[in-house]
Amino acid sequence: MNTIGRIFRLTTFGESHGIAIGGIIDGCPSGIELDLEKIQIELDRRKPGQSKIVTQRKESDTVQFLSGLFEGKTTGTPIGFIIPNENQKSKDYSHIEDAFRPSHADFTYQKKYGIRDHRGGGRSSARETANWVVGGAVAKQILKDVQIDAYVSSVGDLFLEKPYQELDFTKTESNIVRCPDAEIAAEMIEKIEKVRKSGDTIGGTVTCVIRNVPIGWGEPIFDKLHARLGQAMLGINAVKGFEYGSGFCGAGMLGSEHNDLFNEDGTTQSNLSGGIQGGISNGMDIYFRVAFKPVATIMQQQETINSKGELVTMQGKGRHDPCVVPRAVPIVEALAAMVLADFKLLQNNSGQI
Amino acid sequence: MNTIGRIFRLTTFGESHGIAIGGIIDGCPSGIELDLEKIQIELDRRKPGQSKIVTQRKESDTVQFLSGLFEGKTTGTPIGFIIPNENQKSKDYSHIEDAFRPSHADFTYQKKYGIRDHRGGGRSSARETANWVVGGAVAKQILKDVQIDAYVSSVGDLFLEKPYQELDFTKTESNIVRCPDAEIAAEMIEKIEKVRKSGDTIGGTVTCVIRNVPIGWGEPIFDKLHARLGQAMLGINAVKGFEYGSGFCGAGMLGSEHNDLFNEDGTTQSNLSGGIQGGISNGMDIYFRVAFKPVATIMQQQETINSKGELVTMQGKGRHDPCVVPRAVPIVEALAAMVLADFKLLQNNSGQI
Amino acid sequence: MNTIGRIFRLTTFGESHGIAIGGIIDGCPSGIELDLEKIQIELDRRKPGQSKIVTQRKESDTVQFLSGLFEGKTTGTPIGFIIPNENQKSKDYSHIEDAFRPSHADFTYQKKYGIRDHRGGGRSSARETANWVVGGAVAKQILKDVQIDAYVSSVGDLFLEKPYQELDFTKTESNIVRCPDAEIAAEMIEKIEKVRKSGDTIGGTVTCVIRNVPIGWGEPIFDKLHARLGQAMLGINAVKGFEYGSGFCGAGMLGSEHNDLFNEDGTTQSNLSGGIQGGISNGMDIYFRVAFKPVATIMQQQETINSKGELVTMQGKGRHDPCVVPRAVPIVEALAAMVLADFKLLQNNSGQI
Amino acid sequence: MNTIGRIFRLTTFGESHGIAIGGIIDGCPSGIELDLEKIQIELDRRKPGQSKIVTQRKESDTVQFLSGLFEGKTTGTPIGFIIPNENQKSKDYSHIEDAFRPSHADFTYQKKYGIRDHRGGGRSSARETANWVVGGAVAKQILKDVQIDAYVSSVGDLFLEKPYQELDFTKTESNIVRCPDAEIAAEMIEKIEKVRKSGDTIGGTVTCVIRNVPIGWGEPIFDKLHARLGQAMLGINAVKGFEYGSGFCGAGMLGSEHNDLFNEDGTTQSNLSGGIQGGISNGMDIYFRVAFKPVATIMQQQETINSKGELVTMQGKGRHDPCVVPRAVPIVEALAAMVLADFKLLQNNSGQI
Repeated sequence: MNTIGRIFRLTTFGESHGIAIGGIIDGCPSGIELDLEKIQIELDRRKPGQSKIVTQRKESDTVQFLSGLFEGKTTGTPIGFIIPNENQKSKDYSHIEDAFRPSHADFTYQKKYGIRDHRGGGRSSARETANWVVGGAVAKQILKDVQIDAYVSSVGDLFLEKPYQELDFTKTESNIVRCPDAEIAAEMIEKIEKVRKSGDTIGGTVTCVIRNVPIGWGEPIFDKLHARLGQAMLGINAVKGFEYGSGFCGAGMLGSEHNDLFNEDGTTQSNLSGGIQGGISNGMDIYFRVAFKPVATIMQQQETINSKGELVTMQGKGRHDPCVVPRAVPIVEALAAMVLADFKLLQNNSGQI
Repeated sequence: MNTIGRIFRLTTFGESHGIAIGGIIDGCPSGIELDLEKIQIELDRRKPGQSKIVTQRKESDTVQFLSGLFEGKTTGTPIGFIIPNENQKSKDYSHIEDAFRPSHADFTYQKKYGIRDHRGGGRSSARETANWVVGGAVAKQILKDVQIDAYVSSVGDLFLEKPYQELDFTKTESNIVRCPDAEIAAEMIEKIEKVRKSGDTIGGTVTCVIRNVPIGWGEPIFDKLHARLGQAMLGINAVKGFEYGSGFCGAGMLGSEHNDLFNEDGTTQSNLSGGIQGGISNGMDIYFRVAFKPVATIMQQQETINSKGELVTMQGKGRHDPCVVPRAVPIVEALAAMVLADFKLLQNNSGQI
Repeated sequence: MNTIGRIFRLTTFGESHGIAIGGIIDGCPSGIELDLEKIQIELDRRKPGQSKIVTQRKESDTVQFLSGLFEGKTTGTPIGFIIPNENQKSKDYSHIEDAFRPSHADFTYQKKYGIRDHRGGGRSSARETANWVVGGAVAKQILKDVQIDAYVSSVGDLFLEKPYQELDFTKTESNIVRCPDAEIAAEMIEKIEKVRKSGDTIGGTVTCVIRNVPIGWGEPIFDKLHARLGQAMLGINAVKGFEYGSGFCGAGMLGSEHNDLFNEDGTTQSNLSGGIQGGISNGMDIYFRVAFKPVATIMQQQETINSKGELVTMQGKGRHDPCVVPRAVPIVEALAAMVLADFKLLQNNSGQI
Repeated sequence: MNTIGRIFRLTTFGESHGIAIGGIIDGCPSGIELDLEKIQIELDRRKPGQSKIVTQRKESDTVQFLSGLFEGKTTGTPIGFIIPNENQKSKDYSHIEDAFRPSHADFTYQKKYGIRDHRGGGRSSARETANWVVGGAVAKQILKDVQIDAYVSSVGDLFLEKPYQELDFTKTESNIVRCPDAEIAAEMIEKIEKVRKSGDTIGGTVTCVIRNVPIGWGEPIFDKLHARLGQAMLGINAVKGFEYGSGFCGAGMLGSEHNDLFNEDGTTQSNLSGGIQGGISNGMDIYFRVAFKPVATIMQQQETINSKGELVTMQGKGRHDPCVVPRAVPIVEALAAMVLADFKLLQNNSGQI
């Protein structure tokens, strides 16, 4: 179950403190001239140690492609890749060898599998998301004209209230919190720093806008476009919610307010639908919002239990993110790209012939 | 792509105005004494015409089982079933043969497939959800001790604010809006009636609580338990959002507030996690909330376009729900049951041997 | 696991003595004008009672389509269908309620599932193959120019030795054994009649030739075109072997004899490869041969055991085929068509874009 | 489509002349103490250069495990592995950069993908089978008591006629052709050497016997145990046929000869069924035979075409197998093991609960 997609498929492996993580991209069409530098740039956007408001762990996160390319082009055969693990400090985790960190997956992995690699969270570590970024970066190169832009839309109770249409996405990378509004960004950074200094962590949301999706992507019933986007986003570590278009706000509205009336060219005057009708893209912008809880590892003393069920006291060690959303931005984009690439390739089949 | 599940699988077919809808339940274990009456009761909870605040369409929604049972017990072979369509008034839909209803799937189906059965929305009709209720009612009988209770938690801006622990779920079916708090229920019913009389519709939310799930269900990475629940719920017609545990609220919290500290027995003192850690059930209650937009068909004049791109005026005809959430309650439960039954059967394999 | 295919998918249900058998065809492209009469003709080729050398059971095997069609055309939504069971004589099977027929699936179903519908073999009955014929008849209409011709190539030790290139496939349906050579056909019919009169049964082989498959269908490694054809054919009741191209004979040859040298246009001078290289069609004829064991139900006394492990004597009752290959011809074609339609639709994705 | 299995799944990547080949084993249960040495022994049985009758290419074929193990035990998370490519002589293949080798996959890959890695056959090289051997070696350790023994049963027209019950499988590895009968083995070796000296190649068959499979493995209809075995075996490079139990011989028999009569304990007196009834194991030995064509690369001049459709003359270069069956023995076992492990894990679900 470590596979996402039906035509464009990524299967992954790897623990945070093993030799390497990696994956296999299967179903990538042939003849695509892959820009490997762009893939590395996406990894760099996700990597630890990139700024003062993220974990200070240092890993170069350099991807090595092992197959599926010939003279720079995809051959239609599976693309195997690995990302060696570098900066593991396994002893940072010796305190959890026999104790379960609160609100982490330690307890459930131990109970489900009867064994777990406790170092760095093992398979449940967010390090896995580096694999997804590779898959997404390849997917983006299949999608061509489709434009995917994610950004931080809230940190704690600090919201970027402006509608996305008023934002300049070229500014997202201009600050370390990845919020395209410089003013709010500064406030967010300040808030995260304050939280970090208090040994605490804080949650936030990421909004993603996808433009230029042709009409017709998505499969009705159980594989609706937004349902697959939702599944992918809910799979990201720390995610607690997903909404698209009008989202939870839409549940408070009247039909007469909510309906998107058509223009003569098939576009709509409003877009509360979020670019999807009946699970199929309608050509309007797709946009959605993802909620991230605060990181569970805090630098404060907490009481917890060990495998014998005894109460023990624990304090977070190692190098952790005080707020996950700045690094989540490229992850959200990557998963969106993989979901869309899969639907693009499926659409070749599911429509008219 | 009309299949949900990997071990416990439901594959469905059917348009609202065809001969019948139906499905095949594959992967149901053998030897289960199926209570067919219970299945019909679930269908009756979903069926149209059951109260004054839902569509007045009349259909008995009687399920016929065609295979997979022998002397009342499942045989391990696929369970085929059909639900004949009865009360079709196809001429109610002649006005949309060549026009696209706003915020419906008419436009996207036409563009994707180049053809559509316009009568009653065809495949995009919520009539399909009757198939899901059958699948879910079978799944519930596999789950045994697992208790699934959904209820209406808001209609428009009217919220049931009480935490679910203070509610008596045996009261949910005691009123027509399916809200377990009698007082709020009365207000909700009044609101829906008022909206209906104005020819409008209104959105709402459904909350679902799942108790007695053993520790260990769910598959990490791309098939996290909550990600599959989210995918299933987002597939329901009109759904715009899904959150579990602390949900979007959790994005505003600090780690020190959000962490669920353990008791010595492995339960947790709080449950902001919503019963799932790392995608795997931890034995605590699972709970989530689903947002439904207002029904798109309103009994008011709206401007729209036809297939030639000409502006035309349209008014909803036929018999429609002014608010979808009361009838959505059994649908949410059914999908939750199917997702859980699938993970239960998968768990036989994915854990220790 | 009652599903075949990845894009063009058939999921089936049904026992021989239940209310109906049926299935759901998912992934069929939209806009295809389905010739329903052609589908019924294929069913008639398979149906019991059609000649003196097959079972005398009478069933009309009339398929009813329930969804997925609008004004005669496919809509891209799932095509649900049922075939009512008619001529069940369940009491013919009362003698096996508690006894296991030798070389049937009674014993393994009972042990695997702990329960079985013993009437007519239940789910293990070859009645299921009628569902496949429906799926195959739809697939044939997707394949258009591809020509699939199966025929009986041996009955017992009586072989049609001529290479297929010398046969006139328009003659296959001109005799009841479905062998395109009139002379051998007459001998085969005589042999089957003789076997039938002795209360015995006999095996045989079916050969299938597929012409006009474009270059490029098939997916390397685990989904090679011939491997999927083999899987499908080995799934037919009573099949014991599958070979394609040079088959088992090829294992006795030298490379210098076996290699198919190219012509300048990319065709090959010989075709021992059987139209497939590396799992991918090369544009030459695809041909393969399927071995069927003799039907296990014989009209002679046999000793067997009951569920208590006691020895009991049993004699075949009811109406059974003395030789399965004449009725297997349309089944082989149907499965071949479904496999090819699936690869055709997959090929839209897996090649160049 | 580079994945085999549904619960126990192997996904692979790699070209013969890339950096490495490798794969991901997903769905392996946790808590299994993996004997890594046994895995390497299986690889050594397959590796090139092991004797005078196989290719003289030298590769150590050392597998490196990258994840999924903790302190020697499986953790239930995916097992990633790579096998570095070592002894590539890519220039041995410069002559086929623009020419298609007869009866190889060069032509079909080029036409399907529009691009191919011509070096060593790229993805179509049998080097890929090393990945399968790793997967199979892990699967064998899940299967425990199940005993899988393959051996060479013919080379060209030289057959090992003895029934497998009279063979001593501990002798299979005692000679380089992997035939458990020393006398026939010597003849086979002599034949292969003679063929090799003439610059030619020769085909053969491998027989596989599987003992101690419990009753009940296998899924009826499209996933019959023998159908999945057949699909797996037909996926091996150079395979042209598969038969199990009585196989093609069975097609010449009468029902009264072919039926396997029961003993009182549920075993059968004969076993022409080959251990499988209705697609489900019946507890008797499973046995099957696989036909391999002669290797297409011969050390003789052949005429062929280049990408422009011009006739060119070509002669095999590099180091190739004169007969593939000795090295195919561990590959057949590996695939059988993976198919069986998958059914074992599926059986936890598909039977009674």
